[in-house]
This record gives sequence, C-alpha cells and structure tokens, in this order.
Amino acid sequence: MQLKDVISLSFGTFFVITSLTSCSTIYSPEIVKQPKIKNIILMIGDGMGPQQVGLLEEYATRAPNSIYKGDNSAIAKLANAGVTGLSLHGPADKLVVDSACSATQLATGLPAGNEMIGLTRAGYKAPTILEKAKSLGKATGLVSDTRLTHATPAAFATHLIHRSMENEIAEQMVRTGVVDVMLSGGLRHFIPKNYRLNEAFTPLEKQLKESEIVPKSKRRDQKNLLFDANKNGYDLAFTKTQMFKTDAKKLLGLFANSAMANGIDTSYRRVSEEPSLRDMTQKAIDILSQNENGFFLMIEGGQIDWAGHNNDAGTLLHEMIKFDNAIEAVFNWAKGREDTLVIVTADHETGGFGFSYSGENLPESEVLSNPAQDIYQPNYNFGDLSILDTLYEQKKSFAEMWHLAKGNKNRPSPLSLVSIVNLHSTIHINEQDAKSILAEQKNEFFKRGHKSLGKKVASKINDFTPFYVYLEERPLNLIGRAMSTKQNIVWSTGTHTHTPVGVFVFGPEHTVKKFNGLHTHVELGKKMQRIFDFNVNNRH
Amino acid sequence: MQLKDVISLSFGTFFVITSLTSCSTIYSPEIVKQPKIKNIILMIGDGMGPQQVGLLEEYATRAPNSIYKGDNSAIAKLANAGVTGLSLHGPADKLVVDSACSATQLATGLPAGNEMIGLTRAGYKAPTILEKAKSLGKATGLVSDTRLTHATPAAFATHLIHRSMENEIAEQMVRTGVVDVMLSGGLRHFIPKNYRLNEAFTPLEKQLKESEIVPKSKRRDQKNLLFDANKNGYDLAFTKTQMFKTDAKKLLGLFANSAMANGIDTSYRRVSEEPSLRDMTQKAIDILSQNENGFFLMIEGGQIDWAGHNNDAGTLLHEMIKFDNAIEAVFNWAKGREDTLVIVTADHETGGFGFSYSGENLPESEVLSNPAQDIYQPNYNFGDLSILDTLYEQKKSFAEMWHLAKGNKNRPSPLSLVSIVNLHSTIHINEQDAKSILAEQKNEFFKRGHKSLGKKVASKINDFTPFYVYLEERPLNLIGRAMSTKQNIVWSTGTHTHTPVGVFVFGPEHTVKKFNGLHTHVELGKKMQRIFDFNVNNRH
Repeated sequence: MQLKDVISLSFGTFFVITSLTSCSTIYSPEIVKQPKIKNIILMIGDGMGPQQVGLLEEYATRAPNSIYKGDNSAIAKLANAGVTGLSLHGPADKLVVDSACSATQLATGLPAGNEMIGLTRAGYKAPTILEKAKSLGKATGLVSDTRLTHATPAAFATHLIHRSMENEIAEQMVRTGVVDVMLSGGLRHFIPKNYRLNEAFTPLEKQLKESEIVPKSKRRDQKNLLFDANKNGYDLAFTKTQMFKTDAKKLLGLFANSAMANGIDTSYRRVSEEPSLRDMTQKAIDILSQNENGFFLMIEGGQIDWAGHNNDAGTLLHEMIKFDNAIEAVFNWAKGREDTLVIVTADHETGGFGFSYSGENLPESEVLSNPAQDIYQPNYNFGDLSILDTLYEQKKSFAEMWHLAKGNKNRPSPLSLVSIVNLHSTIHINEQDAKSILAEQKNEFFKRGHKSLGKKVASKINDFTPFYVYLEERPLNLIGRAMSTKQNIVWSTGTHTHTPVGVFVFGPEHTVKKFNGLHTHVELGKKMQRIFDFNVNNRH
Repeated sequence: MQLKDVISLSFGTFFVITSLTSCSTIYSPEIVKQPKIKNIILMIGDGMGPQQVGLLEEYATRAPNSIYKGDNSAIAKLANAGVTGLSLHGPADKLVVDSACSATQLATGLPAGNEMIGLTRAGYKAPTILEKAKSLGKATGLVSDTRLTHATPAAFATHLIHRSMENEIAEQMVRTGVVDVMLSGGLRHFIPKNYRLNEAFTPLEKQLKESEIVPKSKRRDQKNLLFDANKNGYDLAFTKTQMFKTDAKKLLGLFANSAMANGIDTSYRRVSEEPSLRDMTQKAIDILSQNENGFFLMIEGGQIDWAGHNNDAGTLLHEMIKFDNAIEAVFNWAKGREDTLVIVTADHETGGFGFSYSGENLPESEVLSNPAQDIYQPNYNFGDLSILDTLYEQKKSFAEMWHLAKGNKNRPSPLSLVSIVNLHSTIHINEQDAKSILAEQKNEFFKRGHKSLGKKVASKINDFTPFYVYLEERPLNLIGRAMSTKQNIVWSTGTHTHTPVGVFVFGPEHTVKKFNGLHTHVELGKKMQRIFDFNVNNRH
C-alpha cells in the first residue's frame, strides 16, 4: 500500500501523479506501438464464480435441449478470442469480500473495506476509473439489472461509508452527473417519500405513467431526484420504447421500482415494456460510442448473485443466460475494433454452487460396445445431462414460488408449497420435503435491530448454519436442498466464497496480454486505470 | 466424436491418421517458425479447483506468518509467466467426473466414462500421450504422491475397465515397460500375496529392508512384480537415498506400501527416507532429460483430493504447499528453455471448498482514519486473515487424528476425540462437538457389497447427505464441520464438483497461446498430442 501518501490529495493531483509514474514506460518503443484503447467495457457477473460459468457452458454445449444447440456460450467465445485470467478479490483485511468492496477495488485499484462504497479502507474518497474517464473527456455509463443504487454500480460513481445508503447514492449520482448513461432499476430511491402519480401530470409523470412500474418510494425526504436529474441535463426513460426513442447524450433510465426482471421472466419474455440487460447494454453503447474521446461502461449481471444466495439453480442458469446475452451484444460490437477493451469478470462467487456425484439412484450395469470388456458399472451417480434441461425448464424463481405459495399469509401450508413448487418446476418435491422447508429453529445468531439477523426464530438449516445469515432467504435455501439430490446439485453457503473468479478479456493483443495469469482485483483495477493513463500520455 | 472410425484401428495406424490430419497446417509459414517442443511436463493437482488454488495463494500472499513471506506461490508465478485457461472436465455422458475418467481424457484427448482407465467410452483402448511419446523415441515418466497404481497415473499407461483393478494396473505397467521412470507409493500391488521380507535376502530385498516400509500385499497371486520389473530393465528404489544414487535410465521407485506421506508430515519433515513429491520430480527430470528426443512426464499432487474428500482444510493447505514445491522445481528447470511445455491443471475440484462469511462473532464498530466518516461496522464476519495461519498450524490430518483418538477400538470416546483434536489443531473443539462428530444415523443409501456404501449405519450428516458416499470418511467431514465456524470455512460435498479448473501453461509463447480460454479436458488432451505430432512432422 503505497497509497498512504496519495489518499489525502485531491482528485486532480492524483491524476497528475499517476501520469508521472507511468512516464518511465512511455518512451519504450514497444509500448508506443500499442494501439490506443479509447473504450473500456467492464462486465461484472455478480456472484459469477467459475462454478457459475461452468454451469452455463455445460448447459450451452451439453444439455440435450440446449437453446444454444451445443454451441459455446458467448462468454466462452469471448474467452477463446481473448485472454483468460483468474483473480482473487479479498478485501484489504479479511478473507471474504462483499459486492461493494469488490466493485470498489475494481473501480479504484485500491484495497478497500467490506460494505463501503468508493472509499479506501481508511475511509477516504478513492477516485474511480469511471471518474477518471469523465475527467479525460470520455463518456461514461452504468448498466445493471438490479438497482442503479445497488453496491456494484454505486462503487463506480459514488463514495459512501455503507452500501445501504441507497438514497444518498442516488443523490450523489444525480448531483455530480459524472455518469452520462445510467440504466437500471431502483426508481424508489429517486422519488419523494409517499410519492403518488397524481392527476395533474407533469411531462415526466406522463412518461412514468406509460410504464408498468408501481412507484413506491424508499426515501425519507421530499426530494424528487427525477426532476433534479432532468434539470441537470438528463433525459429520462421508464420503458424500453422510451429508452430506444431518445437520442439524448445523457440518459437516466429507471425501469423498475426496485430490481428489474429476473432471468426466468426474461427468458420466458414475461416483461413487455422493461428492457432486457442486453437492450440496455446496446442502448448504452449506442449513446456512449458517439463520444470521440471514447467511453467507460460498466454492465452488471447482478441477479446471478441473488440466485446464488437463494441456492436456486434454475434461476441461476437463467441469470447466466441473461448476462451471456449482454456479453454477446458487447462482443459483437467490439469484434474487429482496435480501440476497445472488454473485460468480463465477477466480484466473487455466491453459494458455493456445484454439480456433484452422489450415492442415490446408483447406475445399472451396462454392456459396452467392445465385447472384449467386462460389464461396466460405475460406483456412483455422476448426474445425467438431462438435469441441465430440467434447470432450464424451471418456470419461476424460488423467491416467486415462496411468494405465491404463502399468498397474503406469513408462511404457506405444506400442501400449497408442494403444489406451487411442482407447478413451476419439473423437479418435484413432496409433503415431507415441504415440512422440512417449513421447519424452524432458534436463531442462534440473533442480534436485535440487525438488518438480516434480527429475528429470534428462523427456518431450520442443519449444517453450516452460521453461513445462512439472510433469514428470509432460508426457506429458499431449503427448497434448493429439497431438489438437490435429483439435481445432483450441492451448495456450501448462503453467502459468498473466496473462489478466484475468471477474468475474460477481449481486445487488441498487446493490451489483453496484461490480463493473463492469477491477479487480484486491486491489480486488475490498477491495470484498467493505467490503460487510460497510457492513452492520455500517448496523445501528447 | 469423429473417433468412431479410429478406435478399432491399431496404434501405429492411429498415429499415421493424426499425422495426416495435421499436415494441412504444416506448410503455414507462421507455424513452421514455432520452436520445437521436445518435452511436455503435465502436473495434475488431483481435486485442485480454483478454490484450492485460491486457498494457497491467499495463504502465500496474505497469511500474517506465511512461510512464503507474502511472495506469490509457484503456481501463480508460473501462471503469470505463461498463459492461463479454464477447463471443463465432465465425462462423455455425465455431469461430474472421477479421477480415472478425467486423467483418461487428458491422456487420450478422447471422451471417456467414469472409473475407466485409458479406454474410450465404448470400452476400446485409447492411445495415451505417454504411449505416443514412447513411440516417438522419447523418455516417459509418472510421479505421484499416492500410489503408482492409482487412477491418475494409471490412466496414462494402462487400459482397464475399472480403476479398482490396481493389481492388474501394476502388471500392465511392469509388462509393457512403457514408462521409463515411475516414482510413487503402492508397493502393496507389486509384491506376492502374504509377502514377508525373509532372512535370506536377495539384493532387491536388501534394498527394500533399508526402507521404513512395512510391506503388506494386496495381491491375490504369487507374482512378484519387483523381480519382473528388474528383469525388464528397471532399477528399483525404496528410499530417497537409493533413488538419488541410481543413474539408471529405467527406474521403478516405490516408497510406501500404499500412499506416501501427506502434506502435513511433509511440511513438518516427519519422513526421513521417503522422497518428497519435489524430490521425485527432480529425479524424474534428471533421468528423462537425458533422452535427446525429449520426454513426457506426468506429476500428480494426488492427496489434495483426499483432503478435499475429508473436508480437512489444514491438510488441504499443506497438500497444496507440497504440490507447489514440486511446481517450483519444474518451473525453475523449465525457465529459459525453448523446448519444454509445462501444463499445471487439475482433474476436478473436490469438496466444494470455500472461505465464506457468517453471522457468528460479528465485527465491532470501528473509528476510521478519516475523521469525516461515520463509524464503520460491517454487518457480517468476513473472516480474519489469521485463519490462514491456524490452517498451517494444524499438526495432523483429520484422518490421523481419528486414528489416534480411536486407538484399537472401533470409535473414540468423545473425550479422547476432544483431547487428540485439540492437541493437534489450534482450532479447538468441545465435548458437544465431539458428540456431533460421533452421532450416527441409518444409511439410506445402503447397498450390500458396495465398496463404500455397504454399511447400514453411518455417521450423521444432516444436509446434502447423499453426497457423502464414503461412509468411513464421514467422521472426518464432521470434524471439518465442528471447526468450520471458527475457520470461516464451508464445504458443499464429500465428493467432486464440476467447477472448471485452472490451466496454467508455461513454455514458448507461440505454443502456450493455444491453451488460453475456456476448454474441455478432451480438447486439452488433443492439443497436447498435436504438439508432439507437429514436432515429429516438422522434423522431416
């Protein structure tokens, strides 16, 4: 950490210093030959460990009814056309990272603390690559299928002590105007407390009324950040049509009150006026690529993480497909360009997901084609490839199943749970399973007022209980357990794991080479910033 | 699978065909410029997923008392000097692979079935890269810290319907003589039934007597494969001294009756006359590199997998260090050479290992250096870096602890278990933990006569029970659970996961580039074979 010297300096000074430190390399003839990278597109699969990438690629290439028809996923195509690395993402002083810290480390190239947004571990503002891009005259963008104010996008454009301060995140974003294109969910943090679409529509409200969104504010004040954004030069969009229609250079698109559609609803096209992650990606590139100085764009596949937390493998597959569709759009745009670097990575792995072999339903003996061989009979159940299809066939997320099963009660009956789950999944559960899902235990980790641990009783997780800290998600973790044997699927946790994540980088060969190997996210963040430094220095 | 046409052809013909198919590329000027690869060194960390690589690298770079003193692991250094890829390893027709199938796919470049050795899925002999190397006049070697007859080494040199046929594997190895240097454990499969070191020593027996090995045969016949090997031109070695002394070109070293020393005993130097994995690696390279035509050498870190199956994180770290030491030796030898390709990969991941964050022992609030910031208090326990040191401090494997605690009884008492565990680990357990470890349940997966599921009662695993198929290892899995909260460690399974594994390749740039991206082990095996094809064709 040579940063102690830098952290108290102002922004402008910081950029001068980094320029100076890279001077020593500027005169190397080899480096000057490098093509200039104008644009960086960073794609973060939140919670997308190698495990999740493996799920997608196995599905794409080997599911009997794969919608990819055996072709590689876009992520694999991009990886094979570029360079692959692995990256460790631990925070400054702990083993396991959260999304806020991981995104901060990627955004700033500095070691950070968990749950902080855009700060150094010591609590000082850390300049982000998005802010650097802006200061270099580039266009900037953030796209996410969660909320714009969620940890990952927030860490690229705001600076706050805790990720939960989403109202403040929204305010900082609107006030600084550092992000030209912002497309996501999270309307609730931009509208005043008790907001209602009234009869006397302003033009903005007319626009909002065209969408299917039911606005419900999370703010505690009367600020209307939609108006503020508009005054600050942003066009607004609340539907796919509005988004594609505008030709504004600055665009704030908020397409859901909280999170946008999940992967399953996206796959089955249940959302008519909400743009997909791919739609938002394409629109962002359309706008940003008009800037002659280039752009920085971060695109998050943010609900991969949520499916992992819920131990919901079917939804996980659909989230991976949703993100892969956005990757395909980016890859198609970037192919053949010499001025763009695409980096696809993750902030951490979620859930400890795995296919695994079991002792249930052991294989029968088999006569092999070669008559000279003895009978073939493996000792364990290694999982049929058709399981991949059953994951795709899941028609609702576990969260939605739970919501539907309980209706307006606190908890569903065993029978309603069985009927709802079996209606929406080809992997069925029985009444005994439902009883296990509904079983409760004392919460040994009770802490009064804690965001997720503040209840005294919780659903019953038997093993590795302390790692299931989101009590409200535990029934979903238990639906996952009820299906696990038939799916040959295992999960280790309700939170994150340290698993190094893949780094798949596409662009000009001389630049992508730097991303090979086993890195850390701090190094990765530094490398990205140096690419912009270099191209600035190289311009003069 | 264009292989259907090939599989019934003889070896020689197969090589001609692959030569022909690669002819189309020979005349490309770019390819002819490539340096010739004479040697391939393939290093397989059995069960070494990205999770396990992450454990080693976190320990090396961030443990407060790291024996690496903050430096990168050898695997990271090699990765950063070479090329990194990821690889899926599923068998021909299932989701999850075993070591025999995975090694077969790497060795042959053909899709294979689980638990088979060196065969295609249809049961036909598949030519291995080691056999190809031999047919090209190269020297060949196999090194493992498990048994020479274990699945991974076996798949490179023998062809059998099931991995359990270790006596037959030993016979095939000795009979064909296709492997010049074989260094490992597994003496028990090479000595006759009821073998005893008698008084009238033959020279071979004198040699064996010098070792600390207590021979105990697993054969059911009177064959003495040590004599057969000797007749077939092999020098034999049973101790480190004997191994280093010989200058033979053909060497069979068997340094343990079954498995060699585990990582902990290796780290704490408890083995005086047994060579380490690094020692064996160095000796193998010394011998094989004398062949002017080059060599193929496979080195397995085989007990990483066993620590994973046992959910034993301390032993896992030491196994990773043991393997990393061997990698360092190979990397040091290969650095600066233009004729050698080093591939470090794994066959699969074992255990679903992860560091994870929990709700136990939540962090206190903290005043940050920046006085402008509010109090900092993360919501969860993300794991202290000192945990890495406690893993290194583990003094015995769980398997040994269990063995010591039970003495000559079937099971230990709770108190003896507590005292033994706490004597050998700085993470302590209490009597309640011991009772949970000793709790039993009906084995719902009972199958009469089954190798691992043949008992009606088994240790009590609560969640994901069908994935704990090795009943005898369940007490060890439960010791892992008892320590997990304090270690911030989670495990998902007692078997393997599908997690894509890292592929770290060092060598001349034009060759290593081919290993970038997201592959399968079948493709990886094909690529290795083509490298030898190319260099043969290129010679003429």
